[in-house]
Amino acid sequence: MKREGNIWVLGGDLRQEKLAALLSEDGHCVHTYALDQAAPCGGIITETALEGLHRADCVILPLPVAAKPGVLHTPLGDGERPLADIFSRLRPGQFLCGGMVGEETAELAGEYGLTVHDYFRREELAVANAVPTAEGAVQIALEELAVTLHGARALVLGYGRVGKLTAHRLAALGARVTVAARSYEALAWAEAYGHEAQQLTDLAGYLCGYDLVVNTIPRRVLTRALLEELKESCLVIDLASKPGGVDFQGAAELGVRCVWALSLPGKVAPVTAASALRDTIYNMLREYS
Amino acid sequence: MKREGNIWVLGGDLRQEKLAALLSEDGHCVHTYALDQAAPCGGIITETALEGLHRADCVILPLPVAAKPGVLHTPLGDGERPLADIFSRLRPGQFLCGGMVGEETAELAGEYGLTVHDYFRREELAVANAVPTAEGAVQIALEELAVTLHGARALVLGYGRVGKLTAHRLAALGARVTVAARSYEALAWAEAYGHEAQQLTDLAGYLCGYDLVVNTIPRRVLTRALLEELKESCLVIDLASKPGGVDFQGAAELGVRCVWALSLPGKVAPVTAASALRDTIYNMLREYS
Amino acid sequence: MKREGNIWVLGGDLRQEKLAALLSEDGHCVHTYALDQAAPCGGIITETALEGLHRADCVILPLPVAAKPGVLHTPLGDGERPLADIFSRLRPGQFLCGGMVGEETAELAGEYGLTVHDYFRREELAVANAVPTAEGAVQIALEELAVTLHGARALVLGYGRVGKLTAHRLAALGARVTVAARSYEALAWAEAYGHEAQQLTDLAGYLCGYDLVVNTIPRRVLTRALLEELKESCLVIDLASKPGGVDFQGAAELGVRCVWALSLPGKVAPVTAASALRDTIYNMLREYS
Amino acid sequence: MKREGNIWVLGGDLRQEKLAALLSEDGHCVHTYALDQAAPCGGIITETALEGLHRADCVILPLPVAAKPGVLHTPLGDGERPLADIFSRLRPGQFLCGGMVGEETAELAGEYGLTVHDYFRREELAVANAVPTAEGAVQIALEELAVTLHGARALVLGYGRVGKLTAHRLAALGARVTVAARSYEALAWAEAYGHEAQQLTDLAGYLCGYDLVVNTIPRRVLTRALLEELKESCLVIDLASKPGGVDFQGAAELGVRCVWALSLPGKVAPVTAASALRDTIYNMLREYS
Repeated sequence: MKREGNIWVLGGDLRQEKLAALLSEDGHCVHTYALDQAAPCGGIITETALEGLHRADCVILPLPVAAKPGVLHTPLGDGERPLADIFSRLRPGQFLCGGMVGEETAELAGEYGLTVHDYFRREELAVANAVPTAEGAVQIALEELAVTLHGARALVLGYGRVGKLTAHRLAALGARVTVAARSYEALAWAEAYGHEAQQLTDLAGYLCGYDLVVNTIPRRVLTRALLEELKESCLVIDLASKPGGVDFQGAAELGVRCVWALSLPGKVAPVTAASALRDTIYNMLREYS
Repeated sequence: MKREGNIWVLGGDLRQEKLAALLSEDGHCVHTYALDQAAPCGGIITETALEGLHRADCVILPLPVAAKPGVLHTPLGDGERPLADIFSRLRPGQFLCGGMVGEETAELAGEYGLTVHDYFRREELAVANAVPTAEGAVQIALEELAVTLHGARALVLGYGRVGKLTAHRLAALGARVTVAARSYEALAWAEAYGHEAQQLTDLAGYLCGYDLVVNTIPRRVLTRALLEELKESCLVIDLASKPGGVDFQGAAELGVRCVWALSLPGKVAPVTAASALRDTIYNMLREYS
Repeated sequence: MKREGNIWVLGGDLRQEKLAALLSEDGHCVHTYALDQAAPCGGIITETALEGLHRADCVILPLPVAAKPGVLHTPLGDGERPLADIFSRLRPGQFLCGGMVGEETAELAGEYGLTVHDYFRREELAVANAVPTAEGAVQIALEELAVTLHGARALVLGYGRVGKLTAHRLAALGARVTVAARSYEALAWAEAYGHEAQQLTDLAGYLCGYDLVVNTIPRRVLTRALLEELKESCLVIDLASKPGGVDFQGAAELGVRCVWALSLPGKVAPVTAASALRDTIYNMLREYS
Repeated sequence: MKREGNIWVLGGDLRQEKLAALLSEDGHCVHTYALDQAAPCGGIITETALEGLHRADCVILPLPVAAKPGVLHTPLGDGERPLADIFSRLRPGQFLCGGMVGEETAELAGEYGLTVHDYFRREELAVANAVPTAEGAVQIALEELAVTLHGARALVLGYGRVGKLTAHRLAALGARVTVAARSYEALAWAEAYGHEAQQLTDLAGYLCGYDLVVNTIPRRVLTRALLEELKESCLVIDLASKPGGVDFQGAAELGVRCVWALSLPGKVAPVTAASALRDTIYNMLREYS
């Protein structure tokens, strides 16, 4: 893409709106479509039709691309916009990307000879998004706990992207952090970064001392039996995507305070999330050009 | 005081309620009075009269002792309780303490030959309370900012207790922190702890880059002229006690987002605040016995 | 292996000697062989012959197993000990391990129906060893620089195990750390942990400001052209294994101060290195039993 | 002093030599005297006589000013230079400073109507010097311990300038740090910064677990009885000025490894030390002008 590219940003939520603004600040000529309820922003062209789409250097679909099959996800838009209308206007040479591109969307695009590059599968975006997710977890803990994180005992389940950065922040605020993971390698990393490490399968009998448990494992790891061990004031934050890692039914019955927090980046820091998306799209453009 | 002392906790808010619970957990015989709306707690004796007060080893008045002159501060109590009723039951040998003991209260106590030791003047309590205050500031920043603290540029005004611990936490979360203070010594400390340091009197012209400004100086330092320099998305958190450090009128007119946060310890972490109070009272008992 | 196992520790250096002591402290019955110059240690049986070797539950060869083909590596031993003598005494059921098991050693063992499990290939040991390596790099920097690390500008090349932990420690001591790596993912991680990130291929023209460069990439990344950019007082520490990442010839000609530091764990913290080895062998025993 | 001042740097060691270079880099016209063995440095005028001294805007004596009464301290100079020769050339209007100005020197200066401003008494210099001191302590620990600081248990005695910054760095490298101090306030600060805190007078019986003890208290706190409690591999670093805080005789008899480290700033980081000195002198010039 040339330095001052022609970029179309279609559909999506606040993050997509902020993305358009950031791209415009970088000097690109930005068009938005189906972001009708977004605040107007100087320099950005609000399109009501798809006329000029075939001249775009880069077309950015939202995350997710489609909430229901074949229809653009437009939480800030008025009316339904079929993806077919969009795809039919595009040429194979144009760079087209979107987040969480489902099979049906990919097939539909294929019918028009197009590929929707999925930015949500990019490792650098996943890492960048783990930062606001970790901050969101910290925010919830600060809001919900009657003790300070400083001096609190925290357990982080899982030591992938979100687990690593959440443990790091909790420790930085003075919590005494234990990381539970399965692999010896993950446990060695947790120790190398200064946390206590505990085998995930050996949690039973060790949970009564924690003020906070943050789960990042997308598997039912916090069973009813484990939840029963928690002290009354303990807070559980589940950051794992569906179906979540907590026996929520059991938690409700036991009276365990439990916050299931999903999609934190766009909620807690939409500007940072948009800026991570922008950087990733630049990386993709560099690679695919 | 003997190991299993007889302690009366009178009036006050949630912190005082939690204090009673913590003292009871330590094995003391705890009586509460004028905490009528507090949740009942096993082992604590709820007193409706002052009969047994003269047998107390330690009597703890709230923070502040009196909201209006001569009357116990009882936000969780029903009806007014004159301080004179309490003082008249006490003997000079009993250890009596309270927070923010005003002149009138001190004089009244003096008439009964009593001294109200002021725990709020204890340096170790002030330091311990700076921890929840700093966490409260972090919480507000996380809630209000559309960017992550990670990578944000933050300015902390003042490098006393709260300034030190707030700067520390912001930096620990990945913010780039500048500390503005007046004395060369404070600036040297800020640098030694890894922050940028800037002379407080030289702020003009350097404020446009900040995402967050936290003030801890109880003097009107953020004048209208300085507020005008802030970028639109910048958040101002004022932690300074009355009259605060911000030209609030000017901020409102300029549309600067401004949160004036007072008495954070009791609000954001009542259990930690109560536990700091307990430790301080133990220290006082050790010194005065 | 049963709780109080019969363990033989053969050959090796100070780390192997400390390993024997740690295993003995754990309650095992430990025999050493070919560690003749090691300090005697209560409870450890010094063997001069291989009589009892067939009764061992666990046999630990050194790192590396063989300095020259077919001969046990015995820097603390007197005389040569052929590996064949050892292998001929062992039965296939016994757990046998060593570090950096070469092809020739593996083949020789195979002739006796034995497998030498290589602890040096274990990821958790590699991570654990990165800690003393990173501390060793910090130590060298503290020794060699005329400025404090606090406030110094440091560049870390590579963001694998050693790069991650070295960057972390330099930043913790107040250095301003930039990480240069190739993949977008590595750069995203570096930023998530609070460092500046720079594309490795774009270093030219950006090196003049650094006080310290630490290389962890086992490829000639610091070419003569890049070395020429460094300021005179800049220190280069190369942690990469042979052939190293620095044009040493060029560095010598240019007068660039350059320390090539290999095998730091055993040198800077032999007890910690031995303890990491012990934990890894325990993990292997758990898996292979 | 005007922007491009005329500065004389007299006597002293490597730090004074580096100071001259830094002042010259800042654009001042710098003269050195009695630094005969210093490396020549472009732009600096090496004086062999005191002719032009009366034209200096700022005259900087070394630290200490005099090693023996009435004689300039000149470790890098040839021959003795009486202070009287220097003072007799100066006028009261000229800014004159030095470090650790003794009574005799002050009196002698007074006879000539001069005041030697003591930069060593400046709080900001003391704080700034605590940084290299703390780094020096870390360096010694890294060099001497057979375990990594990561995971080591460290005790810091005293929580003044050096204690604060040393504890901070040890914890940053992953050590588990306990701070022992006397006042409740110091203990509260240590806890607020995330360390364990222990009453200094209650150390007996709690010392056997430490891998490292760093003393910063200039009083005999580590008595023979306490030293006896340390485990064999424990390292003691004494940063306290004379007479030091350790019973060295007892330590030697007990075989306790003990490093008494004095004047670390000039030794471990002369350039940083010189730069702190320069900043302090600038501050003084601003105040006294």
